Amino acid sequence: MIQKLADKIKKTHAPICVGLDPMLNYIPEHILKKAFAEYGETLEGAAEAIWQYNKGIIDATYDLIPSVKPQIAMYEQFGIEGLKAFKKTVDYCHEKDLIVIGDVKRGDIGSTSAAYATGHLGKVTVGSKTYAAFDEDFATVNPYLGTDGIKPFIDVCKEEKKGIFILVKTSNPSSGEFQDRLIDGRPLYEWVGEKVAEWGADHMGDTYSYVGAVVGATYPEMGKVLRKVMPKSFILVPGYGAQGGKGADLVHFFNEDGLGAVVNSSRGIIAAYKQEKYAKFGSENYADASRAAVEDMIADIDGALNAVK
Amino acid sequence: MIQKLADKIKKTHAPICVGLDPMLNYIPEHILKKAFAEYGETLEGAAEAIWQYNKGIIDATYDLIPSVKPQIAMYEQFGIEGLKAFKKTVDYCHEKDLIVIGDVKRGDIGSTSAAYATGHLGKVTVGSKTYAAFDEDFATVNPYLGTDGIKPFIDVCKEEKKGIFILVKTSNPSSGEFQDRLIDGRPLYEWVGEKVAEWGADHMGDTYSYVGAVVGATYPEMGKVLRKVMPKSFILVPGYGAQGGKGADLVHFFNEDGLGAVVNSSRGIIAAYKQEKYAKFGSENYADASRAAVEDMIADIDGALNAVK
Repeated sequence: MIQKLADKIKKTHAPICVGLDPMLNYIPEHILKKAFAEYGETLEGAAEAIWQYNKGIIDATYDLIPSVKPQIAMYEQFGIEGLKAFKKTVDYCHEKDLIVIGDVKRGDIGSTSAAYATGHLGKVTVGSKTYAAFDEDFATVNPYLGTDGIKPFIDVCKEEKKGIFILVKTSNPSSGEFQDRLIDGRPLYEWVGEKVAEWGADHMGDTYSYVGAVVGATYPEMGKVLRKVMPKSFILVPGYGAQGGKGADLVHFFNEDGLGAVVNSSRGIIAAYKQEKYAKFGSENYADASRAAVEDMIADIDGALNAVK
Repeated sequence: MIQKLADKIKKTHAPICVGLDPMLNYIPEHILKKAFAEYGETLEGAAEAIWQYNKGIIDATYDLIPSVKPQIAMYEQFGIEGLKAFKKTVDYCHEKDLIVIGDVKRGDIGSTSAAYATGHLGKVTVGSKTYAAFDEDFATVNPYLGTDGIKPFIDVCKEEKKGIFILVKTSNPSSGEFQDRLIDGRPLYEWVGEKVAEWGADHMGDTYSYVGAVVGATYPEMGKVLRKVMPKSFILVPGYGAQGGKGADLVHFFNEDGLGAVVNSSRGIIAAYKQEKYAKFGSENYADASRAAVEDMIADIDGALNAVK
């Protein structure tokens, strides 16, 4: 699966993923209206609106991109119905041959981490049968609990040829409160990055590891250092666009082969029609606005990468 | 809700919660057989077995205890059907007036953390209506992303008079990999503990804060230090029983008022019938074995607390 990600990035020239993080206030009126007319202002109605909204964006962008990153929190807030829309989205992305990075930020220990890994990346056994519950290709994982939290994910990933991205340096302003604190003269995120490299050595693809890292676009200098600490790990880079990151900031997240990073944009793509730049599309054609925003993002990042070649 | 927890602990003399972390291999044969006969060896069948198993344990123990802590990973691994069993369990515990600590270990930033908080502790808005999705009373939260990850939970908790327990020092062997690293001469978990105290000051109940901490029973010396660092925070203490913690280890997790900690046991209670000590009950009467194990746990902890009075 990590090789598939690398191959698809090479083919599309798009080292990006589209963050499918729907908020009801992003969703165009005509979709909400239809969903509420059918299901009422209910959790089912919200889930139907989310699903139709996602489907429009996927249909309009899938040929341009290698991967998507649905943020499960945005579905989980609508409970069971929301999670059905999450699962439907994952399955539909697979139909379109997209790689699905489940942004679930799970993390626990032992059998509990194993259960999360099973639910999101593996297969659960019921009597003599097995079932894939959510069936993403990658999942994001929190490292705070140490190896006991990570190892069960890697075990499942080995069986399924799937992967994880471990939070190393997150994109938010307060990420430094703990992540930047110095331990023997080096920040915590570097120590976590070293562990990612160590864990990653245990589950290698052809050239890259199935164990990647999350490093925010908003911290390009730290990305430069972490790129070297984890040379075999893909870096999932949130914070592009709406959070402030630009293509030129991102070049050091990549290796010299032009690979090694996948940059996420959520709001900047899925709610593009709300930006002045794409307002001409109008809310009815929100998905076309998303397509234009994807094209612009690819050009921005590809341009920045070519400029340093 | 934090006052309700304190009051219920005083009334029951049981500063404990029962960890509802069902694994299929804990569930007695007669329950599995019935569920599979009705729904087949399917995710629905597994979920039905989990629900019936939980119901038996709740019915047999609810009058002895203030709270339960369902571990959502154990449900999430069975996908949508598993999460329906989670929700059914939360609702049933509320019917029995139990306080429900959702062990979800969520944590993200900004609107994403807000979505998790909404889904687990708050109410989501759909048009002109609002709905509580999972509706636990407390949730566990991961601190790695800093204040940006915690603040949205506290905002929801203030509205709902609910609370969180933030991971500080976890019970697992490798928790020290990052949590014990020294920063300016003091371990990371102490710095996190200080933040818990700071965050907690922002959402106080009568005597305790709605913002608590998770500190493993397996690290009693650290519990002693952290008790003083966060005097107004309840400490949720996993790791009792199956993971090795004993009543005598736990006295320093409590304040002098006999409050301030709630000790969790999962496997030791819910799969008690599998232990030699409770084997006489037999698998048919697994719930009675759980009741006996709860009584023994209460006596162990109460005895240890009285011994130091």
